[in-house]
Amino acid sequence: MPPETHDVLTLNAFDGRGGGRLDSATRALLARRTRNFGAASVLFYRAPLNLVRAEGVWVHTADGRRYLDAYNNVPSVGHSHPRVAKAIAEQSGRVSVSTRYLQEVIERYAERLKATLPKSLSNIVLVCSGSEANDLALRLARQATSGVGFIVSEAAYHGNTAAVAEISPAALKRGGVPKHVRTVPAPCRQAYGNDIAGGFAAAVASAAAALKKSGVPLAGLICDTIFSSDGIHAEPCGLLAPAVKAARAAGGVFIADEVQPGFARTGEHMWGFGRHGLTPDIVTMGKPMGNGFPMAGVATRPGILTKFCAATGYFNTFGGSPVAAAAGLAVLDVIADEDLQGNALRVGDALRERLAELAQRDGRIAAVRGAGLFLGVEFCRAGDLNQPDPKTASCVINGMRDGGVLIGAAGRHANVLKIRPPLCLTSAHADLLVTALAATLAA
Amino acid sequence: MPPETHDVLTLNAFDGRGGGRLDSATRALLARRTRNFGAASVLFYRAPLNLVRAEGVWVHTADGRRYLDAYNNVPSVGHSHPRVAKAIAEQSGRVSVSTRYLQEVIERYAERLKATLPKSLSNIVLVCSGSEANDLALRLARQATSGVGFIVSEAAYHGNTAAVAEISPAALKRGGVPKHVRTVPAPCRQAYGNDIAGGFAAAVASAAAALKKSGVPLAGLICDTIFSSDGIHAEPCGLLAPAVKAARAAGGVFIADEVQPGFARTGEHMWGFGRHGLTPDIVTMGKPMGNGFPMAGVATRPGILTKFCAATGYFNTFGGSPVAAAAGLAVLDVIADEDLQGNALRVGDALRERLAELAQRDGRIAAVRGAGLFLGVEFCRAGDLNQPDPKTASCVINGMRDGGVLIGAAGRHANVLKIRPPLCLTSAHADLLVTALAATLAA
Repeated sequence: MPPETHDVLTLNAFDGRGGGRLDSATRALLARRTRNFGAASVLFYRAPLNLVRAEGVWVHTADGRRYLDAYNNVPSVGHSHPRVAKAIAEQSGRVSVSTRYLQEVIERYAERLKATLPKSLSNIVLVCSGSEANDLALRLARQATSGVGFIVSEAAYHGNTAAVAEISPAALKRGGVPKHVRTVPAPCRQAYGNDIAGGFAAAVASAAAALKKSGVPLAGLICDTIFSSDGIHAEPCGLLAPAVKAARAAGGVFIADEVQPGFARTGEHMWGFGRHGLTPDIVTMGKPMGNGFPMAGVATRPGILTKFCAATGYFNTFGGSPVAAAAGLAVLDVIADEDLQGNALRVGDALRERLAELAQRDGRIAAVRGAGLFLGVEFCRAGDLNQPDPKTASCVINGMRDGGVLIGAAGRHANVLKIRPPLCLTSAHADLLVTALAATLAA
Repeated sequence: MPPETHDVLTLNAFDGRGGGRLDSATRALLARRTRNFGAASVLFYRAPLNLVRAEGVWVHTADGRRYLDAYNNVPSVGHSHPRVAKAIAEQSGRVSVSTRYLQEVIERYAERLKATLPKSLSNIVLVCSGSEANDLALRLARQATSGVGFIVSEAAYHGNTAAVAEISPAALKRGGVPKHVRTVPAPCRQAYGNDIAGGFAAAVASAAAALKKSGVPLAGLICDTIFSSDGIHAEPCGLLAPAVKAARAAGGVFIADEVQPGFARTGEHMWGFGRHGLTPDIVTMGKPMGNGFPMAGVATRPGILTKFCAATGYFNTFGGSPVAAAAGLAVLDVIADEDLQGNALRVGDALRERLAELAQRDGRIAAVRGAGLFLGVEFCRAGDLNQPDPKTASCVINGMRDGGVLIGAAGRHANVLKIRPPLCLTSAHADLLVTALAATLAA
């Protein structure tokens, strides 16, 4: 990987240089943080936020300010949603023990979740994190295919275990991916011209051939179905289907990593792969699944799971606990009852349109992309996609933070604004965001 | 590994043959479970339990029965403990977002946790599960040493990620460990005679030499400090120190896996390694950490963490959320305020004594072992440690379940009763357990 791939790890990270701007309480907390968490402590923004509470789309800091959260997709149905908090509280006081025992709420949750998925993916494994879900998916794919190699996008991020870090070029600070992993550019015009779908499929086929040539049979293609860390690439609808076909032709399975796009965020569908008109072999999910309660999952065909379990005992102590099930059920209830998928589509479309208008008036914005409430705004010099401008992106992110709106960075060059608010964002909130962005750009 | 190592995976698992004994509600739930979770569904007991609630040491089933839980160490301060449930409820309604932002409760928790650990292990990484903790520990050890190989005990179980499964021979249903892993018999009289500590250290030194000879430099020795899955080996105190010295002499670090023994269970110390008079390089923890809230952690020296973070970006979305911190603080409060470490020592010692008396009157029991409230009772034919008797162990476990007491199986041959109750077990509860065991043995 070229070194700039690594920028997204640090672009929006606090590095101490903004320390002088912090109040004394925040400085004291920061010193404790550094003592306790050392080198693994990574905070957002030139001036980190000291949070004390949050509700809906708002987070509140110790100094009495509030910020519109347009970044965090874990509290996806809204920060501290009372229905989810109540479900967690009630079940925590009732029983919270492993799935070595039958517990009705767990089956109820699995059935509700399965109702949102293709019928063929009728077996669920409940785990604790998106990383655990993807780690298991890699093992399932290898057992299913007797393959070893994986194809991922150039700035993919799939999680933090040893095996998953190997297929996450965005997590590498130095060195490249190991030889069983091949990267392909994410599906975008810049890489593939006008035939994004065809170009991406050809790149996948060629990566599979290269793996084969090096003696590594393909296990699978794994994609975040909205290519979050690659800079958010959602168009055209259906673009993934030819690539999945190519991966299957080469003997691999397709793993849809729904950790970021899943659970109604893209508006048109519950899952990101829905926009691509395909059925994955394995689906992984996580972040918004419990609205903050640590839970994640894998859905697959019974044949794939059976083959894996014949070779290995798999048990996840915390995965699918009745508290996780209760939290997960509340999240699905809220998505349905508050029509958050419809809201993501309506407010997301309107927001994207307004961002596109802004782009027409500002040459620094080269593209506005995304689906539903998962949007990217790409900054380039002279509007040229070949001249990424992470510096402007960083200024805008920190400027908006100072103006009371939280967003983040994405993309191989960290030059894309990542806009990913709770799904209960209203038009009024979207107005606030656009106004703050326009003001920051003007400043 | 010899095939019998795998018995512990299935010995106490429901296999459908006891189906006729189930009531219709349980049978219906079981059918849903099989449809939803397929081959990865593993339930305890010939007749699985259908749980509806739990408190303290008791779990309640849908048919109105209650069972003394002498097995589950996740609800370690007691099932549904009101202080922990309240802490989770309050913080879930306040804010639950990642550690990309400062939040005071997280520092408070890290500092309380660090106060229980050796001073040198001053950096914490908070994650979601023991598997994630051990997965990270392997990566830390490799970066710290530039080594690759690991030494583990013969029936070790350290978790479920791809990398951790490789060092978990107990999870393998077929095949052996990969070539970068070497196994040594767990520290017991049967393997090493009277000099358990010396024999174990010699085995570790010899495994390190064998790795080196095969071109695999040592990264570390990792041990569950009470060797839970190997059948619970706790004596003599200090037995691990020479082995750790041998691993370090060969260039490796020592990872203390405290996922099972940690958080006061062994009675004399907060951590299992405390009984061995040594300071690990890396400590991993999990299961009881949040009394059911999914959380786990790694403690290490700042130098080890810094070296790792220079190579790789590591972030854990759910790890160390403010809800996890609140749950973890409540657990530490309850351990202190209810003197659960003292209780584990007192009730555990008395229970072990009574089990030893039972063993003297029953030739089928070859050994009673353990520390605090983590005890093992080993069944062998003719009291001969070379003739393990998993069949009797299985009968006893299922008989006690029918008699209202829940325990499990451990050991390479699955012939050891695993007794690991919540730490609030009283003498009266211990009496119940011993009475049930005596009655089952008599039947």
